This record gives sequence, structure tokens and C-alpha cells, in this order.
Amino acid sequence: MKKNCRVVFLPFRSSHSFARGTNLLEAVRKAGLPLKSTCGGKGTCGECLVRVEGGEARGRASAALPQEVRGRGYALACQTSIERDLVVELPKFEEQSISAVAGSRYFEENRDRVSGVFEINPMVRKVSVRVPAPSLSDNSSDLRRLEREVHRETGLRCAHAEYSVLKKLAGVIRDTEGTVSAVLAKSGSEWSLIDVHPEPSRTGLCGLACDIGTTTVVCQVVDLEDGRTLSTSAGLNQQLRCGEDVISRIDYARRPGRLQELQTLAVQTVNALSEKCCREAGITGQDIYAVSLAGNTTMSHLLLGLDPRFIREEPYIPTFNLVPLTKASDLGLNVNPEARVHLAPVVGSYVGGDITAGLLATPILRDAQQTALFIDAGTNGELVVGNKEWLATCACSAGPAFEGGGTKCGLPAIDGAIEAVAFAGGGLDYRVIGGGKPKGLCGSGLVDLLAGLFIRGHIDRSGKINPERAGKRLVRNGDGTGFLVEEAARTFWGRDLVLTEKDIANLIRTKGAVFSACAVLLKNIGLSFDQLDAVHIAGGFGQHLDIENAIRIGLLPDLPRDRFHYLGNTSLSGAYLILLSDRNRQLVNGIARKMTYIELNAEPSYMNEYTGSLFLPHTDIGLFPTVKKLLKPGPKLEK
Amino acid sequence: MKKNCRVVFLPFRSSHSFARGTNLLEAVRKAGLPLKSTCGGKGTCGECLVRVEGGEARGRASAALPQEVRGRGYALACQTSIERDLVVELPKFEEQSISAVAGSRYFEENRDRVSGVFEINPMVRKVSVRVPAPSLSDNSSDLRRLEREVHRETGLRCAHAEYSVLKKLAGVIRDTEGTVSAVLAKSGSEWSLIDVHPEPSRTGLCGLACDIGTTTVVCQVVDLEDGRTLSTSAGLNQQLRCGEDVISRIDYARRPGRLQELQTLAVQTVNALSEKCCREAGITGQDIYAVSLAGNTTMSHLLLGLDPRFIREEPYIPTFNLVPLTKASDLGLNVNPEARVHLAPVVGSYVGGDITAGLLATPILRDAQQTALFIDAGTNGELVVGNKEWLATCACSAGPAFEGGGTKCGLPAIDGAIEAVAFAGGGLDYRVIGGGKPKGLCGSGLVDLLAGLFIRGHIDRSGKINPERAGKRLVRNGDGTGFLVEEAARTFWGRDLVLTEKDIANLIRTKGAVFSACAVLLKNIGLSFDQLDAVHIAGGFGQHLDIENAIRIGLLPDLPRDRFHYLGNTSLSGAYLILLSDRNRQLVNGIARKMTYIELNAEPSYMNEYTGSLFLPHTDIGLFPTVKKLLKPGPKLEK
Repeated sequence: MKKNCRVVFLPFRSSHSFARGTNLLEAVRKAGLPLKSTCGGKGTCGECLVRVEGGEARGRASAALPQEVRGRGYALACQTSIERDLVVELPKFEEQSISAVAGSRYFEENRDRVSGVFEINPMVRKVSVRVPAPSLSDNSSDLRRLEREVHRETGLRCAHAEYSVLKKLAGVIRDTEGTVSAVLAKSGSEWSLIDVHPEPSRTGLCGLACDIGTTTVVCQVVDLEDGRTLSTSAGLNQQLRCGEDVISRIDYARRPGRLQELQTLAVQTVNALSEKCCREAGITGQDIYAVSLAGNTTMSHLLLGLDPRFIREEPYIPTFNLVPLTKASDLGLNVNPEARVHLAPVVGSYVGGDITAGLLATPILRDAQQTALFIDAGTNGELVVGNKEWLATCACSAGPAFEGGGTKCGLPAIDGAIEAVAFAGGGLDYRVIGGGKPKGLCGSGLVDLLAGLFIRGHIDRSGKINPERAGKRLVRNGDGTGFLVEEAARTFWGRDLVLTEKDIANLIRTKGAVFSACAVLLKNIGLSFDQLDAVHIAGGFGQHLDIENAIRIGLLPDLPRDRFHYLGNTSLSGAYLILLSDRNRQLVNGIARKMTYIELNAEPSYMNEYTGSLFLPHTDIGLFPTVKKLLKPGPKLEK
Repeated sequence: MKKNCRVVFLPFRSSHSFARGTNLLEAVRKAGLPLKSTCGGKGTCGECLVRVEGGEARGRASAALPQEVRGRGYALACQTSIERDLVVELPKFEEQSISAVAGSRYFEENRDRVSGVFEINPMVRKVSVRVPAPSLSDNSSDLRRLEREVHRETGLRCAHAEYSVLKKLAGVIRDTEGTVSAVLAKSGSEWSLIDVHPEPSRTGLCGLACDIGTTTVVCQVVDLEDGRTLSTSAGLNQQLRCGEDVISRIDYARRPGRLQELQTLAVQTVNALSEKCCREAGITGQDIYAVSLAGNTTMSHLLLGLDPRFIREEPYIPTFNLVPLTKASDLGLNVNPEARVHLAPVVGSYVGGDITAGLLATPILRDAQQTALFIDAGTNGELVVGNKEWLATCACSAGPAFEGGGTKCGLPAIDGAIEAVAFAGGGLDYRVIGGGKPKGLCGSGLVDLLAGLFIRGHIDRSGKINPERAGKRLVRNGDGTGFLVEEAARTFWGRDLVLTEKDIANLIRTKGAVFSACAVLLKNIGLSFDQLDAVHIAGGFGQHLDIENAIRIGLLPDLPRDRFHYLGNTSLSGAYLILLSDRNRQLVNGIARKMTYIELNAEPSYMNEYTGSLFLPHTDIGLFPTVKKLLKPGPKLEK
């Protein structure tokens, strides 16, 4: 019998050979392909679901994979061993999630309100010139004659020319009889010559904006001559195989060689998405002369290959706040090797470039009169309060409950996730991303569900299910007590979709961590919630976060609803703005120094506030007057 | 019989395998080792002489290798085929030539007169600081806390930190509890952090000064904290295997892959010498944080891997004049990868960094009242005239006659070369470098010999030998008519050492090219020779150029003798000064823009002047009044 089996992975079309008996999840990871698995290969989270075509995988029986789904060709990779040649289709995460992670309507509709300017004044510039031929009477070098023309055309003086330009300059100038384009990049207050090529050419002047999330990475290609976004692409961070959250990745990096591995995975992730964006935009990587990256502090360190261990050891110190422009070739990015790379600056170990860049996409830095709160709730929740004059910030460890992690029924905002829930009469209505049968609930769906159950008395203020009110929806099994969201026959998996009391407790801990961090942050600077003129919310909830429901569960403070704005992926929008104008780059670089960073671990009041937030909406119901009014029992739900 | 033979090359101790029958000169070149050969392997120049130990080479008979020398184990590599395992000793050029190529007494004795300043203010700086530990109340990043201390200690603000520093910063700061040294480098008006290491450490702050000549390369290691030269080392430019002069190397570079080969050879040459210097100085390459290179325009282009072809095509245009600081790792130099590399700027295709740097080692840039002429006579002669206020320059193709090339009896200033000749009574006295039997004559010896023969009437003003005056020293053989300098039994080679009429014609062409270039340059700016306050001479003559004799043959103008100064290797001295102080670097970078470059090929009067100079001392003897007085016949020479 053959010792090795060939596995083709779709949609990547990559083919690999593995020893018979290799675990399929291990095989995917060896092949360097992304596949999520939260439970660590125990067969319980159901996230490593793949479709096996043209062959058969010997999968073990599992509660997470009922026979019916298995019969349709699906298998949990972690429970499958490779016994023959296979074609395995991995989930097309990029296509499923893109609508949820890129940009937002707020950003599109409020160009004149956000802090960053929309002028086109990027850190790189292209200029077409006609370099005069040399003569015996003007024997200036090629470089000097070119610099002279660039100065005449733009008023800019090049203080520096890249070595790669010198290498081709004489040839390009003579081949074209001097009709060339020069590409300049700004560094500090000086300009450098970073490329020269024949004119006319098909080479554009493009930029890559990139939000490097712990879970999801999103890239955009931008035309730097007119500011248009040419394409957007999202995918899982390939580092996921090394750990779900920043803490587990920092721990992973401690062993020899693994920091390098994490860096390589980060670069591979960006490169894969960037290449996809370039294909879609009809350009090549060579056209990209500027890269703007925004990520949390750990992601920024790992991308640069910097040891992240001191981020998680008291007193939680990052290596850098501001990294000066780097060259793409230093990082191994598959764009023009001379492309300038800007990394959004870091405030502290848990307030990183995703927040500093993100602020550009909010109105906060624009107005000195209006004080606003900015909440970016991902696995870590980051908060900023302030205005044009002052800024204070802190971070809390919220957990991934609103991003689909840590709950039995949670999912990221991908196809098959319930993104909105409504209680209508005696029933329960929901909307599934992509239509079809539901697989689970994403953040916005969970908020709706929890709020509805709470307001209607199906769960009490501590998150316990009221068996009498839940009626036929009450489920008791090995996972404890739960609330039936949808019955087996109507779900994708063919098994009951249940929100357990454990899930509820997890959601409450997450919303409690965010709310209590807000409370401590405001108290620390002597403000009350009602002094906030606006609350801007960003992060991984999905596109349809219902503010009313978020207040009902105590995630957001009980303020007039028109003060709330859902801003979507501000980190990406900020990275885009940095690419667009050098003024935005200078603005964001200034932010990091301006912010007061409050370390919650050093705040004695945080624990008390947190404990008070572990109820729906809060132990002090007086903080939520509009919710208090609603707390009257409704009719029993029917099936 | 064995197909392959093993050859060990001494003193390199490198061992290589070659097919039986391989030509030994080819083998040396394949092994990447330096061995000069001017005649192109014809067996006539005698330069590829090697000693064969522990084996036997089958050498062809050759006029350049008499049986007696061959019997002592010597062989001409080009005439030898490898027939068995061999140990071959190559000439130890580095040790032989070092006294002739490094520095000069003038430079040592005139520190307060030369243009460059001797202050210690280099482009890199080292500062020891104590970085305070971070705390919850001061959570500034490692980089910011370090920059703060550097600023407190030196007043300098770091605008940039190298990626390599970021990578190790967190570890170094914690391992040392903050007691570190930071190395900064100046770039434009800004400082960058280029290294950080634990303190106390054995790491020094050193620099490498390097003169990259077409034939000879000289390196010096300098302690940048006190300015001392720690070691000096010289060797042949390994590019010699690709051509003797700049034109032949430019032509060589036209074929694919060869530009890369020339660059690699240049870098290998510098690395080998730099490593030798480091060993002698007791430091490692890592201690070298600054490199100052000076070479002619072609050498500078080849070192950077830039296509040199347009240097030799009208209108003779270099790619660059001024290259901003580069990193050592970009060039592949075996010093600290972050070391800053300064390349002395280029004025035109035939006036390069050896001249701009060299001017720092002359008094020319210091004084606005004293106008001086600077002559650097190598294979190409470069001339500069001017003072602090203005500078004009031109170059002429002199040929290698004064560097040991192009004549039958010529040698570089190495062991065995006659460096001085005196005519005493009826005899001829000489001094040999290193003592021992003479192999030939170096530049200063040839000048003495030619002047003596001319003044005593043994040769006439057109360079023809007067058979009657030469008497027994007259030689007539296959090489034509010649003058016997030493008879076979008393020479190293065991054959007559003869100066032929062809050699004399070659020397006259060379001196004529230099003198006529001086005349055209001065005429061009409206000066006469006697308006020169000083004449500074640099170049490859060896240490003992006799000014009186140089005037007698018409190489130098007939001016009061106290106006002449022999400055030695000004290119190396200038590279040293650039290393020593950033003010010198700025000064030399300014020179290139300030110089008026006169292209002799475009000067109609040059040919007339040149033709007039093809006599001893000149067709217009009135230009040389002191020589005219001497022209009376002396006694016949006896054997």
C-alpha cells in the first residue's frame, strides 16, 4: 500500500504529499494554509469543517459533526486522518467575510467629519520629466541632471537616491532619450529618489493599506494619483495556527525559531492578500510604492520580528512607539522593494496602531469642543476618550465572545452566521449572512439575542435562564442549561443551535469588561457618561450592531441614541487615510505622544467596576434608566 | 594517471583542484587570487613570476625567465602547465609595497597646513547611557527611553532607528539593566541609531579608510575615538585579472555577468585588506561603523556595480557625482552591516573621488591667496589648479609608464625595484627597494635614469640613444637599441637590465601627456606657470621622486624647487580625513560642485601642446631655463 498520499487543497490549488495516517488539520498547517480551530483539535468547536471531494477521509464520530452533514461530504479536519489521495476544499473565508470587515458606511458618508483629511498628498510622488542629453559643455552626472529636472518640475530637492536607482539610471536615461518618470518618497523633511522608469509606461503609483488584526487581515489597493480604492481583500491571519489571541502568540514566540515563524506567517498573510488585490485591480506589486499598516501592538511587533515577550510582562513595555519609515524589502513584502512602509504608532502594549490609525477615521481629533468616546471592541477592547486637545486611553481583555470565539454557538461574521435576531410575538426571527440554514451567531446576532431574552424575562439579570419563561425552548444536556435558538432540522449542521448559560456568562463577562473599562477611564479623567457628546464604536461585531440592544445588555452606556455611531473597521480606514496624505501620517505620528495611557491593571477601582458590570445591564440599574423601564414580563414564547 | 591535480597557493594557504594541463596563470585566476600579468600571458613581462615548491611545473623556455632563475624554483605562471600536485608561492605584494603606497611624510608633518581638519568629529558616534527601567507610571517604549537618555547625554535627537537595533533592543536593555552603549550615525542633518550593545563591552568605534586604485588598493583602520591609525594594508586590485587600466575594465564589463564579477572582485579586495587590518589592529569587522572610500570614477562605479560604459563614450558622463551615505551591507563589505559608507564624490568621468578626497590632504582648499597646482600622476594623470575660492580640473591619459607598466624594465614600487639612480663620475649607482639584486626600475628610478642619461648626453632631446656616448653600455638586440643599466650576473633575473629606446619613447609620451595637460589647463584659466605659488605632487612614483630630475625630463615645470611638494598617497590621506571629521566630509562633498571640469578631448590646443612635449624637456627649451644651462656633455661612462 502507498506510504504517501497526495492532497490537493482548494481553492488554493496547492498540492502536497503526506504520510498515510497524517491528521488532516496538521496537514493543512504543514501546507501553510489557513484553517481556524479554537478547540485545539478536540472536535468540539466545529470550525475546521472542510469538504472532502474526489476521495474519502476517515473521520471520527463527533458531536460537532452529525451524520447528516458528514453525509454531504463535510468533515472536521481535526478528526480526520489522511488514508488516500484527497481533494480537500477549505472554507473560502476571504469571500465570505469581506462585507463585514472592510470600511463602513459611516466612513463613506462622513468624509468631512472625520479627523483625517481626504486631500491627495501621499508620502510618495511620481513626476514625469525630460532629462536633457549631456554634452561636453554640461558634463553633470545623470543623477544630477535628473534631480535638476525634478526640482524644476516640482520644486522638490532630492536629498538621497536609492542604490537601486543608481544601478539602472544610466541605462534608462539613454534608452528613453531622457523621457522618464521619477518616483520620490518623503522621509522626515527630505525627499529621496526611489525609482526611475521609462515614460510612457504602464507603471502606476499605488499604495497598499492594511489592517492586521489578530484574527482577520484586510488589504486595500489605492490609486495614489486619485485616491480611489481599486480593490479590497480579507483573509484569516495565518498566525492563527499558533494561537487564537495575542497572549497565546506571545507565549508561542518564546521557543527558538518561532518568532521567525510568526513573522513569516504575518508577511505571508499580507502578501497573499496584497497579490489578490493587485490581480483584481489589474496592477502588479511593482506599482505599489507605499504601504500603510495598522495593527495592535503585538501584531506590529510580530510583523517586524521583534520579541513580544515584554508586552505581557509587567510593566508591559513595547519596544517602540514610533517606527520610522521602513523599506518593503526589509520586511519581505511582495511590493516594490523600495516601497516605503509606515506602521501606525503604538501608545502602549495594549493600545496599538489599530487605535492610533483608527482615530483618524473618527471625528475625535477634529473638534476641541466635542468630547467623545471611541470603543474598538475586538478580542481586546480598546477605549479612547478625548477631543482635539487631549486624549486618554486604556485597554481591557474582553475575550473573543463577540467575534465568534469562546461560545458554543458563536461564529465570526461569515456566511451562515445569524447577524440579527428579532422577537416577534411568540416567535423568534433571524437573518442569516448569505441566506441558507444558520451555522451559529456572530457578534451582532448575539447582542440581539441576549438583549431580547433579557428584556422578555427569559434570562434574569445574572444571566440564568428562567425555565418557566423559556418553556419549550429550554434545553438541558451535557453542556448544561440552554436556550434553543433553532432546532436541528433547520440548521446547517443538523443539530440544535443552543445558547447555553455558559455562553451567556461569557458574553456578560465580555460586555462587563468593556463597560467597566469605560467607567474607570471616564472616572479617571473626572467625566461622567452624560458629558460625552458622542460614542464611536468600531470592531468585529459585524455590520449590523443594534445600539439599542447593546445598551440593553449593558455593553454601551444609556445615553441618547443619536450620540452613537457604528464606524466599522476604523483601523483599515485609518491606514487608508495615512496612505492618502502625508498630513494624516504626521497627525497619527503625533497622536501616540499626546495620549495618556491608563494601565487598568494598576487601577484599584477596576475590579469593583468589573464585578458590578457582571449583571444585565449592571448591578446599579439606575445607570440604565431606559432599560429599567422595559423590564416587565412579556408573553411566553411558543416554538 | 590522475586527471586532476591539487594546487596549494601560498601565502593564502588555499587549496584547489585543476584538470591536468591547466595553465597555471589561468588556475590562479580561477582560484580568485591576485597575480599581475601585463603582457597577456605571452611570457614577456615577467610579472607572473611564482615560486613552485614541493613539486615541479613544466614551464616553457622564455626570454623572461633565464635558466638560472628557473633553477632556483621560479616559473612564469603563464608559461607553466600543471602536470602534478603543486605548492605555488605567489608574490607577497601586500608586504612588499606597503611603504610605497601608504601615507607620506608630508601629510604627517603638515597637519596644520592641509585643507582637511584634524578634529575628531566623525560621522558615527558612540555614547554610553543608563536607560531607566520602565514602570507602570512611565510606560514609554524601550526605544523612546533610550532616545531620551541619548539626548540628555549628547544633545542629539535620533530621527531614525535601524530595524536591526529594534530587533535586539528589548533584550539588550533588559539583559544589562539598561547599561548600554548606543552608536549613532549622521545622515544629512539627522542622526540615526545604528547599534546598541551591552556596556562595558570590547566593541570599539573604528573606521575603515580605503583608497581604491586601479592597480593598488590600500586600507587603514582608524580608531574613531582618538583618531589613531591602528593598521594599514595594501594589495593588488583583484580586478587586474580583467584588465590593466580603466578602459580595459570598462570594455570587460560590457559582456553579461561581468559587471557583477568586477563588483565582486572590488568588494573581495577591500574585504581581504580590511580583514587583515582588523587582525593587526586586534579588532573585529563588527567594530567598524564607518567606511570612507576614495577611488577614480570608474573604480567607484564598479564598486557600486554601476554600468561604467558611458564613462568612455562621448560626452563622458558618470551616473552620479555625489552618492549619499550607503550601508555597508548594501555593498557586501565585511564590516558592521550598519556601518555608514561614504564614497568620495566624482567631478567627471576622469576626475573622481581619489582627487576630491586627495585635495583634503593638500593645502589648496585652505588659502584664498595662494594658487597651487595639484598633480596626481597614475595611469591617468589628474590635475587640479586653484585655491579656496576656485578650482579647475582636467585629466589626461598618461599610461602606466611611471607605475611599472608599458616598459620592459619597469616595475611597481615593490621589492627588487630600483627606486633611485645616481650618475657618479663614470659609473652608475642605484638603490634597490628591500636591498638585493634588482628586478627592474620603479617610477622614481626611471625618472632619475632618464634625466641622468639626458643631461649627460647619452640620449638626445628626442629620446634616441647616442651610441658614441653610451659606449659599452649600448645594447642592440631583438628589442632594438637600448642602454644597459645592469649586466645579467648582477640582476635578480640573471639577464641584462636594459632601458630600450621604446621604453624611453613611452616614458616621454607619459611625461608629455602630463606636462601638456598642465599647460592647457593653466592657459584655459589664463595663468602662467610662474603664477603658481606651489605644485603638489601625488601618485604612484614611489616615495623618492626627485623633483630636480622630474623637471629635467620636462615632467614638471621649471619653477623654484621650494614650490614643489611630494605628498604621497593623497587619496588615502583624504579618505582618512573624511573618516575623522564630518566637517571634512561636508567639505569634500562641496568640492565636486565647485570644480570647473575641462574636457581635454574638447580642447583643440591640447594636441599641439602634447606634440611639443614629446621632447626632452620640451621643443621650447626656453620653458626650462635651468635645464638649458645644464645641457653640456659630461665624461663618457665606463662600465
